[in-house]
Amino acid sequence: MSNPSLLILPGDGIGPEVMAEVRRIIDWFGTRRGIVFDVSEDLVGGAAYDVHGTPLHDDTMTKAQEVDAVLLGAVGGPKYDVLDFSVKPERGLLRLRKEMDLYANLRPAQCFDALADFSSLKKDVVAGLDIMIVRELTSGVYFGEPRGIFTEGNERVGINTQRYTESEIARVARSAFELARRRGNKVCSMEKANVMESGILWREVVQKVRDEEYPDVDLSHMYADAGAMQLTRWPKQFDVIVTDNLFGDLLSDLAAMLTGSLGMLPSASLGAPMANGRPKALYEPVHGSAPDIAGQGKANPIACILSFAMALRYSFDLGAEADRLEAAVQKVLAEGVRTADLMQAEGGSPVSTTEMGDAILGAL
Amino acid sequence: MSNPSLLILPGDGIGPEVMAEVRRIIDWFGTRRGIVFDVSEDLVGGAAYDVHGTPLHDDTMTKAQEVDAVLLGAVGGPKYDVLDFSVKPERGLLRLRKEMDLYANLRPAQCFDALADFSSLKKDVVAGLDIMIVRELTSGVYFGEPRGIFTEGNERVGINTQRYTESEIARVARSAFELARRRGNKVCSMEKANVMESGILWREVVQKVRDEEYPDVDLSHMYADAGAMQLTRWPKQFDVIVTDNLFGDLLSDLAAMLTGSLGMLPSASLGAPMANGRPKALYEPVHGSAPDIAGQGKANPIACILSFAMALRYSFDLGAEADRLEAAVQKVLAEGVRTADLMQAEGGSPVSTTEMGDAILGAL
Ligand SMILES: CC(C)[C@H](C(=O)O)[C@@H](O)C(=O)O
Ligand SMILES: CC(C)[C@H](C(=O)O)[C@@H](O)C(=O)O
Repeated sequence: MSNPSLLILPGDGIGPEVMAEVRRIIDWFGTRRGIVFDVSEDLVGGAAYDVHGTPLHDDTMTKAQEVDAVLLGAVGGPKYDVLDFSVKPERGLLRLRKEMDLYANLRPAQCFDALADFSSLKKDVVAGLDIMIVRELTSGVYFGEPRGIFTEGNERVGINTQRYTESEIARVARSAFELARRRGNKVCSMEKANVMESGILWREVVQKVRDEEYPDVDLSHMYADAGAMQLTRWPKQFDVIVTDNLFGDLLSDLAAMLTGSLGMLPSASLGAPMANGRPKALYEPVHGSAPDIAGQGKANPIACILSFAMALRYSFDLGAEADRLEAAVQKVLAEGVRTADLMQAEGGSPVSTTEMGDAILGAL
Repeated sequence: MSNPSLLILPGDGIGPEVMAEVRRIIDWFGTRRGIVFDVSEDLVGGAAYDVHGTPLHDDTMTKAQEVDAVLLGAVGGPKYDVLDFSVKPERGLLRLRKEMDLYANLRPAQCFDALADFSSLKKDVVAGLDIMIVRELTSGVYFGEPRGIFTEGNERVGINTQRYTESEIARVARSAFELARRRGNKVCSMEKANVMESGILWREVVQKVRDEEYPDVDLSHMYADAGAMQLTRWPKQFDVIVTDNLFGDLLSDLAAMLTGSLGMLPSASLGAPMANGRPKALYEPVHGSAPDIAGQGKANPIACILSFAMALRYSFDLGAEADRLEAAVQKVLAEGVRTADLMQAEGGSPVSTTEMGDAILGAL
């Protein structure tokens, strides 16, 4: 059997810096644990636009379809703000999600003990927080047609379409229920069924999947606005949250911010199983490209490293190795090693991106 | 000149209880300040459905169009969950907003000094918080066509349409800039221009209104997901936020929850000026109908009372009287008077809805 394959797309801003640390971790697994990956690297986002005039070259798209998993850094930057919508860095990412059909976006919001003080929320509200948001990622208003800016009478109108089929809802619901079974066995589904028909269908289908296939899982429903409130008020009431693409975008970012340390949070985007049984998969940190600190060696590589841990767990069935890597991160944090974003006002001196990588390698 | 007119729609759940306290405040202004209103009352939501089979009778709609301002309590309750979408309590509220063309929903998120401990956020993050969210209320995905649940091939699909015209965006932007001039002179506009064309148009039009009509106001733009994060991280960075109907629904609820005391927050929904110069207007608390505590005399009437204060300010140009009423509320809170929702775990004994009304009348 050939080695499992990884395509690395560092992207823009701090993407390349944090990805460099991930590559060292990948190498460590090869030399120390005998888990060898075939790694290739390519461009995405602004970096791809600069070379190819498109944020994702067709060849890169083809490669992404062929590998076992894609690791992405981050895309975007002020330099590209002036570009047309169709070639903005984000379109590269959105094309990957859509064409690989990565319908289930897993966004854990976990509060690391060593960092609980870091949140803008009170410590007792967030300490020990561990929720998983499952966001639908390939449909809804992100991709629905018709869309665009049209002229009607003597003015323009901007139009987007929210659109969900029963099967699109059912498959992401299944992802959420499967995850719940391996966690607290509790799913909360969020929509706006009180004002949107797509939300009515969403609620109905999620309930049906639960009743017919996952009767053992506890399911509740909440309007997305109430969900935003409850996440802020007492996030520990949740285990798994399942929601659509747009609500998931806001709610997962909100949940991420509750933990106070965005530089820590990974994500996985999963699709249907390939011929080899592995799901199509893309892993990326939740944080953006942070152009303000790019190239300065200040970025926190942990979110990207933990994204690789998610790859070990969800793509390669190496849960124990993922645990090992996560434990190394915890250890380093407990020892007080901090990149600049993890420093409290009180002081101490921050380590660089590479020094954080060194520390994690040391802990491994 | 005839007295200014008010239509009171107590609605469902705790609506009638909290509105009873508002009526006492209205009477106080009549007898003590010589500010007399012609008050009529009618049904909305489930209460209207129970009598008329519709959550808003046409006669009530007509009355709402004729009065100077509408005061609404709350709508909805579990009893009505089984009803068809078209007659759900919420449809009554949405019809009022749409037919009165109340396009600017003003949602202040203010943290009362006496209640700063109450938030799930750290005290320094929220103490003194005073932001105003201006939410577009009559368009977007709430009202866009096509909408519904359709059959395509062998499955159903739920569809809603996000739709904004230039003039719809421009008028709510003006509301935000006008408000900003009377506050911190700073507006942040939120959308998802990176993935939605309606967001691109939104951003462009808001910028144009600023450049052509409000060059003195400081305008920034933020993606709505980043907005949710920044509201959670450091909400005091904002003064006025302007956003669309759906983002506004989530973000204003999130902002409300930051303050920790939902029972305190009023809202105003304003439309174009009528013949008498007053804007079409509906005032309502941000909280819902709270069916779990309805009829027990436990509800906090302050949000509804402060909604009446907003009516004094925005409909009747009685800013000084609004200040007086708001000061009375502050005083009562500073004295430690608390309804059950405002009690910390530590104890003390809560006052009833009516006792809170008594206290505020006393302070007036
Ligand atoms: C970059 C952007 C297109 C993207 C999104 O809106 O999905 C991002 O916010 C995310 O959540 O991954
Ligand atoms: C009751 C519901 C229809 C309403 C909305 O979604 O607008 C509510 O959440 C609000 O924010 O006023």
